[in-house]
Amino acid sequence: MEYYSKEISSLIEELGRLPGIGAKTAQRLAFHILHMPKDDVERLSHTLTQARQNVHYCKECFTLTDQDICPICANAKRDHKQIMVVEDTRDLAAYEKTGKYEGVYHVLHGAISPMQGIGPDDIKLKELMARIAKEDIEELIIATNSSLEGETTAMYISRLVKPTGVKVSRIASGVPVGGDLENIDEVTLLRALEGRTEL
Amino acid sequence: MEYYSKEISSLIEELGRLPGIGAKTAQRLAFHILHMPKDDVERLSHTLTQARQNVHYCKECFTLTDQDICPICANAKRDHKQIMVVEDTRDLAAYEKTGKYEGVYHVLHGAISPMQGIGPDDIKLKELMARIAKEDIEELIIATNSSLEGETTAMYISRLVKPTGVKVSRIASGVPVGGDLENIDEVTLLRALEGRTEL
Repeated sequence: MEYYSKEISSLIEELGRLPGIGAKTAQRLAFHILHMPKDDVERLSHTLTQARQNVHYCKECFTLTDQDICPICANAKRDHKQIMVVEDTRDLAAYEKTGKYEGVYHVLHGAISPMQGIGPDDIKLKELMARIAKEDIEELIIATNSSLEGETTAMYISRLVKPTGVKVSRIASGVPVGGDLENIDEVTLLRALEGRTEL
Repeated sequence: MEYYSKEISSLIEELGRLPGIGAKTAQRLAFHILHMPKDDVERLSHTLTQARQNVHYCKECFTLTDQDICPICANAKRDHKQIMVVEDTRDLAAYEKTGKYEGVYHVLHGAISPMQGIGPDDIKLKELMARIAKEDIEELIIATNSSLEGETTAMYISRLVKPTGVKVSRIASGVPVGGDLENIDEVTLLRALEGRTEL
């Protein structure tokens, strides 16, 4: 880094702090930015600061939004009695892209992971329980990832919520559509077998 | 993108404009930034704007620097009679990292490429000729890349400079140190053969 002047080094260093941006990429990005029109760099900077300043959690479902209540929670046409629990806003977006889910969401912002020291209090679980107590919920669909952490979280929530009488379901694990059996790991194959449905 | 609120979408869009940042990476970076402490985002933004504002070409060698004259050109201990011509600031840094080159540089900011419509006037070539006319130069070492464009540029500069009486040399092409012959392309192998030196 000492081969570049101070401002260039700081730029490379700052960019290199972003996840998945190694030293080489940070350098490439930095030189791209130094050659961009000044106005474009101003706009990029402004967008960064503005987004960070104005984006916060939706008061209902805790997804990231620039409004008080996100458009999904504010939409009266959605089924507010059905809550899909996801780990983060990107997972919510993934289900929204299907265009078929009509309920609302609850974003946990993480999953329980004893290995990483993330407990039930570190994710938006109290907030979920508060919604269940306050609102008239019929079904909770747990759509945490199909990882160890996601499964642990699903089990934990299920045990917590079942006594309240709310129906709790879990999205299916199995062979992805278009997946070639020979390329799929054993755990998934066993899951698909266990979860088989009658035709 | 329409699954995210406006500020999040603009952030993803802006990041996605950077080279080598695809849609997925832009999304990942955006959510990372939205979860970063506000101060860190401010600092990142500030660094971007400041670097773009204060970094410009060195008046001597045209490398990117935040000073009028870069530290290399300003260093009286460097051999100012030897100029290494490189395509960009990163190539300069690569040679500086060796710690063995004692001369100064000239950064072209590109290479002649008829395919991409980049001609001799689009790179800092007039500026190089002005230096040769004005300063007392003994040797010009052409260290453009070993690509078609780099070679074309090297040939062009060599023809232009030779009549001035300045010695013109080209860095060697060949098998990289530690390179395994069987993994090296034919063109490089032939270059290494042509460039063989007596032991």
